[in-house]
Amino acid sequence: MAQQNAWPAIAAVVFDLDGVLTDSAEQHFQAWKRLADEEGIPFTRAENEALRGVSRRKSLEILLAGRPVTEAQAEEMMARKNRYYQELIRHLTPANLLPGVASLLAELRAAGLKVAVATVSRNARTVLDGLQLWDRIDALSDGYSVGRSKPAPDLFLHAAAQLGAPPSQCLVIEDAAAGIEAAQAAGMHTLALGPAQRFAGSAPEALLPSLEGASWPRILAALDDAARARAPWQVREASLEPAALGRQEAVLTIGNGYLGTRGTFEERYPGDQPATLINGLWDAVPIIHTELANAPDWLALEIIIAGERFNLQQGRILAYERTLDMRHGVLVRRVRWQSPQGRTVELRFERWASMDDPGLTALRCGVTALDFAGEVELRAAIDATVENPNNLVPSEIALKHWWPLGHGNPTPQSAWLQARTRVSGAELAAAAHLEVQGIPEATYSARDYAHAPGIAARFQLQQGQTAVATKFVAYACGASGTGFPARPSATGGLESPPYSALARVESAAGRGYESLFAAHRAAWHDLWQSCDVEIEGDELAQRAVRFNLYQLLIAVPRHTDRVSIPAKTLSGFGYRGHVFWDTDIFIIPFFAYTRPELARNLLLYRYHTLPGARENARRAGYQGAWFPWESAADGRETTPPWVPLPDGSLARCWCGEIELHINSDVAYALWRYWQVTGDDAFMRDYGAEVLLDTAVFWGSRVEYNATAGRYEISNVIGPDEYHEHVNNNAFTNRMVQWHLERALETLDWLRAYHAARAAELEQRLRLTPERLALWRDIQQRIYIAYDPTTGLFEQFAGFFELEDLDWQALEPRTKPVQLVLGIAETQRYQALKQPDVLMLLYLLGPAYDERTLRVNWQYYEPRTDHTHGSSLGPAIHALLAARLGLLDDAYQHFLRAALVDLDDLRGNTRDGIHAASAGGVWQDIVLGFAGMQLGPEGLTFAPQLPERWQRLRFTLRYRGQPVEIDLRAEELAPIRPS
Amino acid sequence: MAQQNAWPAIAAVVFDLDGVLTDSAEQHFQAWKRLADEEGIPFTRAENEALRGVSRRKSLEILLAGRPVTEAQAEEMMARKNRYYQELIRHLTPANLLPGVASLLAELRAAGLKVAVATVSRNARTVLDGLQLWDRIDALSDGYSVGRSKPAPDLFLHAAAQLGAPPSQCLVIEDAAAGIEAAQAAGMHTLALGPAQRFAGSAPEALLPSLEGASWPRILAALDDAARARAPWQVREASLEPAALGRQEAVLTIGNGYLGTRGTFEERYPGDQPATLINGLWDAVPIIHTELANAPDWLALEIIIAGERFNLQQGRILAYERTLDMRHGVLVRRVRWQSPQGRTVELRFERWASMDDPGLTALRCGVTALDFAGEVELRAAIDATVENPNNLVPSEIALKHWWPLGHGNPTPQSAWLQARTRVSGAELAAAAHLEVQGIPEATYSARDYAHAPGIAARFQLQQGQTAVATKFVAYACGASGTGFPARPSATGGLESPPYSALARVESAAGRGYESLFAAHRAAWHDLWQSCDVEIEGDELAQRAVRFNLYQLLIAVPRHTDRVSIPAKTLSGFGYRGHVFWDTDIFIIPFFAYTRPELARNLLLYRYHTLPGARENARRAGYQGAWFPWESAADGRETTPPWVPLPDGSLARCWCGEIELHINSDVAYALWRYWQVTGDDAFMRDYGAEVLLDTAVFWGSRVEYNATAGRYEISNVIGPDEYHEHVNNNAFTNRMVQWHLERALETLDWLRAYHAARAAELEQRLRLTPERLALWRDIQQRIYIAYDPTTGLFEQFAGFFELEDLDWQALEPRTKPVQLVLGIAETQRYQALKQPDVLMLLYLLGPAYDERTLRVNWQYYEPRTDHTHGSSLGPAIHALLAARLGLLDDAYQHFLRAALVDLDDLRGNTRDGIHAASAGGVWQDIVLGFAGMQLGPEGLTFAPQLPERWQRLRFTLRYRGQPVEIDLRAEELAPIRPS
Repeated sequence: MAQQNAWPAIAAVVFDLDGVLTDSAEQHFQAWKRLADEEGIPFTRAENEALRGVSRRKSLEILLAGRPVTEAQAEEMMARKNRYYQELIRHLTPANLLPGVASLLAELRAAGLKVAVATVSRNARTVLDGLQLWDRIDALSDGYSVGRSKPAPDLFLHAAAQLGAPPSQCLVIEDAAAGIEAAQAAGMHTLALGPAQRFAGSAPEALLPSLEGASWPRILAALDDAARARAPWQVREASLEPAALGRQEAVLTIGNGYLGTRGTFEERYPGDQPATLINGLWDAVPIIHTELANAPDWLALEIIIAGERFNLQQGRILAYERTLDMRHGVLVRRVRWQSPQGRTVELRFERWASMDDPGLTALRCGVTALDFAGEVELRAAIDATVENPNNLVPSEIALKHWWPLGHGNPTPQSAWLQARTRVSGAELAAAAHLEVQGIPEATYSARDYAHAPGIAARFQLQQGQTAVATKFVAYACGASGTGFPARPSATGGLESPPYSALARVESAAGRGYESLFAAHRAAWHDLWQSCDVEIEGDELAQRAVRFNLYQLLIAVPRHTDRVSIPAKTLSGFGYRGHVFWDTDIFIIPFFAYTRPELARNLLLYRYHTLPGARENARRAGYQGAWFPWESAADGRETTPPWVPLPDGSLARCWCGEIELHINSDVAYALWRYWQVTGDDAFMRDYGAEVLLDTAVFWGSRVEYNATAGRYEISNVIGPDEYHEHVNNNAFTNRMVQWHLERALETLDWLRAYHAARAAELEQRLRLTPERLALWRDIQQRIYIAYDPTTGLFEQFAGFFELEDLDWQALEPRTKPVQLVLGIAETQRYQALKQPDVLMLLYLLGPAYDERTLRVNWQYYEPRTDHTHGSSLGPAIHALLAARLGLLDDAYQHFLRAALVDLDDLRGNTRDGIHAASAGGVWQDIVLGFAGMQLGPEGLTFAPQLPERWQRLRFTLRYRGQPVEIDLRAEELAPIRPS
Repeated sequence: MAQQNAWPAIAAVVFDLDGVLTDSAEQHFQAWKRLADEEGIPFTRAENEALRGVSRRKSLEILLAGRPVTEAQAEEMMARKNRYYQELIRHLTPANLLPGVASLLAELRAAGLKVAVATVSRNARTVLDGLQLWDRIDALSDGYSVGRSKPAPDLFLHAAAQLGAPPSQCLVIEDAAAGIEAAQAAGMHTLALGPAQRFAGSAPEALLPSLEGASWPRILAALDDAARARAPWQVREASLEPAALGRQEAVLTIGNGYLGTRGTFEERYPGDQPATLINGLWDAVPIIHTELANAPDWLALEIIIAGERFNLQQGRILAYERTLDMRHGVLVRRVRWQSPQGRTVELRFERWASMDDPGLTALRCGVTALDFAGEVELRAAIDATVENPNNLVPSEIALKHWWPLGHGNPTPQSAWLQARTRVSGAELAAAAHLEVQGIPEATYSARDYAHAPGIAARFQLQQGQTAVATKFVAYACGASGTGFPARPSATGGLESPPYSALARVESAAGRGYESLFAAHRAAWHDLWQSCDVEIEGDELAQRAVRFNLYQLLIAVPRHTDRVSIPAKTLSGFGYRGHVFWDTDIFIIPFFAYTRPELARNLLLYRYHTLPGARENARRAGYQGAWFPWESAADGRETTPPWVPLPDGSLARCWCGEIELHINSDVAYALWRYWQVTGDDAFMRDYGAEVLLDTAVFWGSRVEYNATAGRYEISNVIGPDEYHEHVNNNAFTNRMVQWHLERALETLDWLRAYHAARAAELEQRLRLTPERLALWRDIQQRIYIAYDPTTGLFEQFAGFFELEDLDWQALEPRTKPVQLVLGIAETQRYQALKQPDVLMLLYLLGPAYDERTLRVNWQYYEPRTDHTHGSSLGPAIHALLAARLGLLDDAYQHFLRAALVDLDDLRGNTRDGIHAASAGGVWQDIVLGFAGMQLGPEGLTFAPQLPERWQRLRFTLRYRGQPVEIDLRAEELAPIRPS
């Protein structure tokens, strides 16, 4: 892809009139007030706030507040108000310019910037006459210029076209939220004037109280400061690097817990991997059992510019930029592109998945014709030709999950599609709506195509003109039904998915982009209020931490407890959407301490999948519930029995059969949740049953070694997956011991406080005295290879007899030890894929002293594949290093976790975000650097901040109470041992 | 799908005028003759033949034979001719009616049939006046009625609309080929009058010399006789059976050796499996290695009737029929369908893949509005959303092979698409052209969709009116190039695939459907001339034999020797287009004896894949060439190492590693070809190298058993695949012996007649004296478990020690023994999947006496899984049974082979036609029932016909000479031993 230059600077300033250049807002208030008084309507200065930047007609409606008037009466009132207003403004003079305006305009003129006034007012000419501004401005757009009022972008786009400046080079100065929104819709820079709360919902770039003292350098400085403040909230891609596109598709994912959409381009490229993954939308797939079926693509947008199709692989890229705004969950792309035939356009794409309305997605696309005039056609579709990648070599041969069931175009601006997954029969409908603003007229037509129905909009662009298209897509899932009813059932029955999707998208079009976008941003604001972590002094860490939390926030199910967070979130096809212990052990703590209701959703997913877990146990000849190593729709095991190696051959994967510790991991997660939240109702109604029935499994699974007089567990895989078929894995056995202790404790608690529930569970789960006695016996006599003299655990029976690996001899290494040496050969060495004994010491930390941790750290840490082993390792190592006071080590491991995706440290970010690592990063901050421990006495902190961190702030919830943590480096004792 | 009734009978008769009702053809001739004489142009009665049913303008052009005239001159000549003609016809009277016409018209009137006259003439009214026919006819369509002349269907469709009879109920009586073609285009019944040779290219349903004595019952009887004569050439589907659709998709495949297109419906249904498989268009696929990528679908046609989409799953099916015309390679579907809103249409679809122009396909669709008037829209596309089925469970999850590269609509009536396979990078272009006839005007527009570009035609249909749409699609393959040039390169370089496809389809549209269809039929005529087998007295067998030959004829590569015939032809996805010994042993004999140039193509495929065969040997540590068990693009082994079992698990497939006999099978095939054809040049240039280098492989593969002093081959699979990893398989070892004998013989022949080539091969293949000595030693001392006292071969070492299987205990059985008992368990029994020792006796028949054959037959035949074992078995058993005089057994096995697909005897016809069985059916006829043997003295015959067969006729070529075989039951001695 061709050359990419920097973006040009601001070249034009567009001023609102009322409240910005002059106080004619005062005259408006006076005129409206006089009208209101005459009509006996109460109207105050405070109520007048709502009229800022709003059309006359809309202002009257607000003033009338629902009072019925005829059209003739309304016309008369508007005319009357205008008469009063005209009288008032006829007396304006340059003295009525607001402070600072005259000098600013002079500065702009001197600096060679173009200036326009853009106002909804129809009296602007009179005002400008009075203010004597005609020779200071280059263009005026007023109520006569365009049809649509703010917050539509038309007024500003009209001004920009007159000035010959593309929106990207325009700064709008506004005193009204609707004006800021209109400028944003136009794709312009924004400076808001007035109190911050006035713009709470509209997010202007910069804010000043007024133009008084606002010299042009001061304004540029304010914009620059604002940009600097936004930077740690942004992931920015400054140029298009074809080699990095795969990683960026995952990194620039947007989502809302209902769906995730990868950061692919609207216009598609060969080899890209677009995906919208809707959590819970499973379909079967060979070997893998089941996977999330890639949903029909809502991004699809073809742009045809005077007959030439927009395509970054052709023509020249003159400027390029993508910005993921993590604060607001928005991805923006800006491109200045010259077509093969030499037409230059500026394009601005903005996309988000509503955090306020989960099935709703929005895409905005602004097109500016820089050096030509011609017809532009936009084709917006719902594209069901999407695919899932294959799970075998060669992986280019993609999988198709959908049968199209129907489609239609109920209006020229809307389209719907219904499709069904081929094996699971899950039904999905999607509806789209397209509207173009900024130009006088567009012609809409149906794109009636079974695999990708859509809407085409055709319009003329004059040179310098900009059109802004808005595409909404709504998804609706359904279990059955194949037709599309013309009307919803009169009896109020369940709506069919297509109707439901169509109704939602049309309602969205009715409410308007700005209103929905504001609701979306408000939801994000609420999320960050409880979840953000602020780090001062280390922008890299600050951005990386936010990035990891952002990825968890867009992946966590918010409105359902029937799904969980996949190991690769909803950002890629890795692990096919399956759920691992990653969620229970690595992610749930973040939510338990910040948004406990979301942690509860994740735990209830395990509760709802108990039937599948019971079937796993029953089919293997055991009792109770055995959670699957890989979990999907219903708790049955979905680990693929075979995995492809790079050469195309298949390797046997045993995790689904013998990586048993998952069962205790689930128990640990809900126990921790209970400790943090004190949510007794959850424990009584759901948690206890999970904890107890998984304990029943252990009772049936352990083996009694009569010779040694102890319980053992043979043939397992521990957390370290470089070693398969091992016996008496310390982690597994010790967690079983912990698990049975908690089970007995929980049953005692239930009996004490919820006797009926206790009795019910005892009967249903057959918790007989004999079974409980067995649990006590196992708990006391299960074999744990711990040497109290040295304090060292042996990872599994025979581990210490394995050979030591010469790690250095394998360097430079670019892949896991297992792929270098082979699966069988790797087992011969004391080489760990990830922490195993150390994982145990992390989970059961308070039970062991620092000496035990240090001894085991010193033994196992150097024997672990930190760079190419499991991505789950670095965050845990960072946390334990911080506990040991090894701050440099901690920070190094922490960055390895925090940057795993932003820097694609493992080369597989393309397959999706490493969710466990993201959860681990939060734990590093809170349980590591802030040194938080949860003990019998509640939360305690023993903070040690990395060298560059000046301040660390975050908020927790503990047992229903908010806890604000604000740590400043200068106030902490400089503890830097070893 | 809803109710389906029988088709209504003929309700209307449409008469041509000139030459049918009257001899005004004579007046035309006189008028043209007078004009010609005046202009000094020679013109005879014979030349007048070409003017039958042709417009006046076209007639003049034919008469002028290229002489240049101005437009004014032409107009004057036509007017002059017409003047002369007018003068002549003004004197017509009812006496000028041709014999039989008056009584026939009276009969038709009495029988309540409607009558119309349809003629291109503009003087028809004058003629009808003179003949006094006005009260005998109901409608007239003449040169003033429509724009297009015959062979366009417009004139007849206009007549039918006036009569209110749908085309399916009209009989056209014509004396001109162009008229018959026009009637066929209209979808009407046809009766031709005149000498047969006049209609050689146009295939009317029935033929009479004239209407003299042609009473209506006699005409109906002639049509009935004609239908009866066609029946053994047709596979007819009288009703739509959803359960049989999968089978029918394969059975109703059309093709031309370049491509095969399954018999799916144009409008698609969920669960259908449309496929156009272009031979040689390989792409990689997991586990399977490579497969034929399903090409973009040329059939795609959406039909929208007054806003309702034609869909057989909705509304009511009032009548339905599909007919595969094997004689002409055409598939016709007729449907009378009532839409959900009650509009009734009659649809007639006709499709063929040109046997004359391999990349070209044609689809015709006639639409009759029976009871409404409204807009009809036809959307013809090239649909690249096609898929290949998955090879694993669940198989519903399809595979996608194509990246779209580009598409366009150069005219409103044409579209093109270019796409590339994802892994192999093979490029394919397709172009489509759409035209609608029968209605005054249609509006064409582009359907600009990247995945399925196409053309829409919109037109109004009045009640009773019929429109006929013609869609041509041309394919072009290319190796590279991604763009579509506006013009072909001026320097005459290689055309890009899209341009080439577009040029071909536009040329086709220019030549016209009837002309291309005639060329297609002529090519088929030529094929059947050399390949047909006629059986009298057994219509079931006759149709079945033709069906099997038809399937081979549409699959055999005609214009290339780089591909072969896949085991499932080009009719399904089974075995993924791979080539097995099925071609060499079962199919090649048919072509070697009928169309040797096609057999040569198939053998050259093996020659061209020698490099891959050599690599197979080298990689396994052997020498020479080792042909793959499954062969695809280049001769490397493509047998999948794993095959899925019904439960989704994977079973190891060893054939690619140890089913070695393929190497001798290839040698056997080319040896037989040489014997039959005497094609020494082939043997010298290609065959010898294959034969010798495969012999080199055997020399490196056999093992010397020093103890026993013999050569052995251990760890193989013989033809019977129920037994894996066996030692000293009699078939394999004996064929190696035969192979080395032939290799030595061939080398001797080369040395004697082509010394330079012999020397070249000796050096290149390193045929050292030591190696040749080793071959002789192996040939003499290879172990073959044959007991001369009993005459029995032991299938492999230890076979006789295996347990006997209680076959009866497994009944009722619906699957192979291997699936009932399991792979390992099956090996314990003397149970054969297919003939193994008997296969040897079939191939080397002349080397063994009848006693040996009988003894082994009696032993092995009862131990073979005839019903669910290999489909390769029945034809061989039939052939051997015939040789043994077991005619009832022979006929039973023969039907099991001949009906395997027509009756879906193995339940897997959906996956594709059993090509080996089809080839075996021909061998049953010729080598079995006709008892042909090829010996040193040439061909000998010892025929024994099945009971019902009265006559058996076929043609062979033997060493360049045609041999006609015509066997009549009454002339054969009644040999019916047990």
